[in-house]
Amino acid sequence: MALLPTNAVAPSREAVATAIAILRQRFADRVQTGEAIRRQHSNTVTWHESQLPDAVVWPETTAEVAEIVGIAATHSIPIIAFGAGTSLEGQVNAPVGGFSLDFQRMNRILEINEQDLDARVEAGVSRKQLNDHLRDLGLFFPVDPGAEDATIGGMSATRASGTTAVKYGTMRENVLSITAVMADGKIVKTAQRARKSSAGYDLTRLLVGSEGTLGIITEATVRLYGIPEKTLAAVCPFESVEGACNAVMQSIQLGLGIARMELLDALQVKAVNSYSKLGLEERPMLFLEFHGTEVSARDQVEHFKAIAEAEGAIRFDWAETEEERRRLWKARHDAAWACKATWTGRDLLATDVCVPISRLAECVKETQEDIARLKLIAPIVGHVGDGNFHTTPMVDRSNPRDMEAIEEFLARLAERAIRMEGTCTGEHGVGQGKMKYMRKEHGDGVDVMRRIKQALDPQNILNPGKIVPPAA
Amino acid sequence: MALLPTNAVAPSREAVATAIAILRQRFADRVQTGEAIRRQHSNTVTWHESQLPDAVVWPETTAEVAEIVGIAATHSIPIIAFGAGTSLEGQVNAPVGGFSLDFQRMNRILEINEQDLDARVEAGVSRKQLNDHLRDLGLFFPVDPGAEDATIGGMSATRASGTTAVKYGTMRENVLSITAVMADGKIVKTAQRARKSSAGYDLTRLLVGSEGTLGIITEATVRLYGIPEKTLAAVCPFESVEGACNAVMQSIQLGLGIARMELLDALQVKAVNSYSKLGLEERPMLFLEFHGTEVSARDQVEHFKAIAEAEGAIRFDWAETEEERRRLWKARHDAAWACKATWTGRDLLATDVCVPISRLAECVKETQEDIARLKLIAPIVGHVGDGNFHTTPMVDRSNPRDMEAIEEFLARLAERAIRMEGTCTGEHGVGQGKMKYMRKEHGDGVDVMRRIKQALDPQNILNPGKIVPPAA
Repeated sequence: MALLPTNAVAPSREAVATAIAILRQRFADRVQTGEAIRRQHSNTVTWHESQLPDAVVWPETTAEVAEIVGIAATHSIPIIAFGAGTSLEGQVNAPVGGFSLDFQRMNRILEINEQDLDARVEAGVSRKQLNDHLRDLGLFFPVDPGAEDATIGGMSATRASGTTAVKYGTMRENVLSITAVMADGKIVKTAQRARKSSAGYDLTRLLVGSEGTLGIITEATVRLYGIPEKTLAAVCPFESVEGACNAVMQSIQLGLGIARMELLDALQVKAVNSYSKLGLEERPMLFLEFHGTEVSARDQVEHFKAIAEAEGAIRFDWAETEEERRRLWKARHDAAWACKATWTGRDLLATDVCVPISRLAECVKETQEDIARLKLIAPIVGHVGDGNFHTTPMVDRSNPRDMEAIEEFLARLAERAIRMEGTCTGEHGVGQGKMKYMRKEHGDGVDVMRRIKQALDPQNILNPGKIVPPAA
Repeated sequence: MALLPTNAVAPSREAVATAIAILRQRFADRVQTGEAIRRQHSNTVTWHESQLPDAVVWPETTAEVAEIVGIAATHSIPIIAFGAGTSLEGQVNAPVGGFSLDFQRMNRILEINEQDLDARVEAGVSRKQLNDHLRDLGLFFPVDPGAEDATIGGMSATRASGTTAVKYGTMRENVLSITAVMADGKIVKTAQRARKSSAGYDLTRLLVGSEGTLGIITEATVRLYGIPEKTLAAVCPFESVEGACNAVMQSIQLGLGIARMELLDALQVKAVNSYSKLGLEERPMLFLEFHGTEVSARDQVEHFKAIAEAEGAIRFDWAETEEERRRLWKARHDAAWACKATWTGRDLLATDVCVPISRLAECVKETQEDIARLKLIAPIVGHVGDGNFHTTPMVDRSNPRDMEAIEEFLARLAERAIRMEGTCTGEHGVGQGKMKYMRKEHGDGVDVMRRIKQALDPQNILNPGKIVPPAA
């Protein structure tokens, strides 16, 4: 699929060569230019075409990042931050080349404040690494975008969320402070460790979700939570998608605070059954998890059961053991792998939208009609409580008819979500893939974004060609 | 107390006169220039000196606001948005004159989406008005800064929070979308109604807390919640401030989700007793409220009691009836009035800071030592769960020694909070009063804020002389 035009201007080859020579002198073999490595650092997991950076650099400290940004700025060369490379909309691509900054070596957990329930980590710390570290303290970091190796820096940059956002919030709510290197090489810490502040513009929230276009995130302070006394999990097939959505709406209105409420459509259940060796009924299905004290977790279950049964819930299958629970959520997280294994020979094209929850069932239904009409294979999974759902068309990229149908499908899906007062992306971000919908969703807000981008990065060296579409 | 120098440049008298004439032609008696009205629209509730606008205008629609901003922009005249005038740091003052925009006539509740738990309202809707409207629907808007007539626009602009933030969050978490008129007269809607989005820079959070310096908020879409099935309230005296703070910390770690946990020091309890005719023990005291289902609210109480007793809680006095509960919270909200009534002839100077909760007891203790040393009368109330506390020195403004002591006290308090990794203001905002601490708290982040301000308001007409201190 052709990439969108961007404002990004390619640096001269001479400038790139000069800057690489300077970097090598300073960072030796922490600068690499081999094609395999450069390819690994451009977009790999999705359908976007890979666009390779000119070099990959592995900084070890915030000060080194500032130094690298300084060198890049001097020579007007793009800088693209790279965490685990699990973003889905071309965020790590290098449309006009430049330097990929790999945060693999910045993976120190710098402080854990148990009493304050926060942790300060370097950008390259993965969420799995953080949670492994926290387990013995009885704490956890809840944001769960699926990929275990996703880094806190990358998750902050893309405003990641996932299965637990309905209870614990997204990265927007869970990042307390960011340390970032700005385009002029200055190091800025956006906030102190207080839980809230009214002291000026919310630079934390401005950088969270900015996908490396306003500053390079080198550290983040995130909120932690106590591991719940009790965790209960179940799957629950429903007569209809509407019934499942209604049950979720009512449980939110009642303030039950259910930790996870994930919708799978029948096709997705089929793929999961086959891949994860589960015998689930092939109907719209909720995967549920309840966190609380012994008493409150069971209270949530009782309330939810009553609501769900009135909305056409067929049965509750409880994960009786910790192992069963893990198996269930592994199956949920492996949904994409299940699709790949079920429809071999096809590529998976992940996309997401998010609408007000009252429109979710309708949005899913219209989307399923589109899928049928366009003869696509496209299972659906959703973070129902947020009104957020994903569909993963399985495409044959060698078939132009397939690719044409996909183009139409994606455009209609994004426009449908926006028409229903929703957003073209709930959690995957804009990157390159969703820039074309920004004007429709944000109107003149796009110009405000452009002004901010120009004010903070006048040379356009921070991840150019992402988020903000070229001026009309 | 002398006001800080600002970057704000006074418009010429001719320009002001011309613009007022144009406004009058267009808005007739919705433009007022009488001194009493102008005084009412400058800072009235706090210690900051009043600085009067040149005129007050009452717009009725977003389009009219855009028109007024257009006129002001043409003549380079400041525009200061005015809600209920309950801000505490000089936010509505007009240091170089200009037009105060009073949102009194923009008080329509535009839509309530019961299923999605959100409401879109004009900026002049008060939180009391919204909650009165919602009651019959079984819904409520939780953010509670104290003043009942505080407007949603003003609360958004100052990133208000208050007693319920520990459970429900502040305006940062509870505003889904803002409609604002930008300095160039363009109308921007920052987001759709989806609960979350990754579609670009978080303009909502950028405007929330910007105190009218980046755009004039004309509408907001806010989150609503179901009125809990069960509400329980109690007061609980403690042996020590440390014990109260520890109990709160542990209950947060356990994820109990207690709705309100308010600390009053012994002096504040004394004032409240006298003003609200309560017979509370004059010790450090928690005011508590528990929201949930019948079962979960009682479960929270049981867990909290066990924790609190181990931390030196002396007794729980339960509000048995709805009326008792209202009386209790009215007493809490009347804390400032209680101070005024107790120490007549003195002015109340409200200030606030916020620190990580682990540092709260220590911060309160050091502050109490300062109060004693400086011979001030200064009760303390705190939103303990957030690490946020207020102190309200009662000052004799005619006594220069008193005012000197206050200057020292305030500076030391703000610096203490920042030293303890906290913020110079948790919820009152920067306005004019806290600009001088911005550099200490944010370092080079202040320059980022200034660049954003300059990019979005190059003429500096939106509430000039607030938040961003003059360049060093």
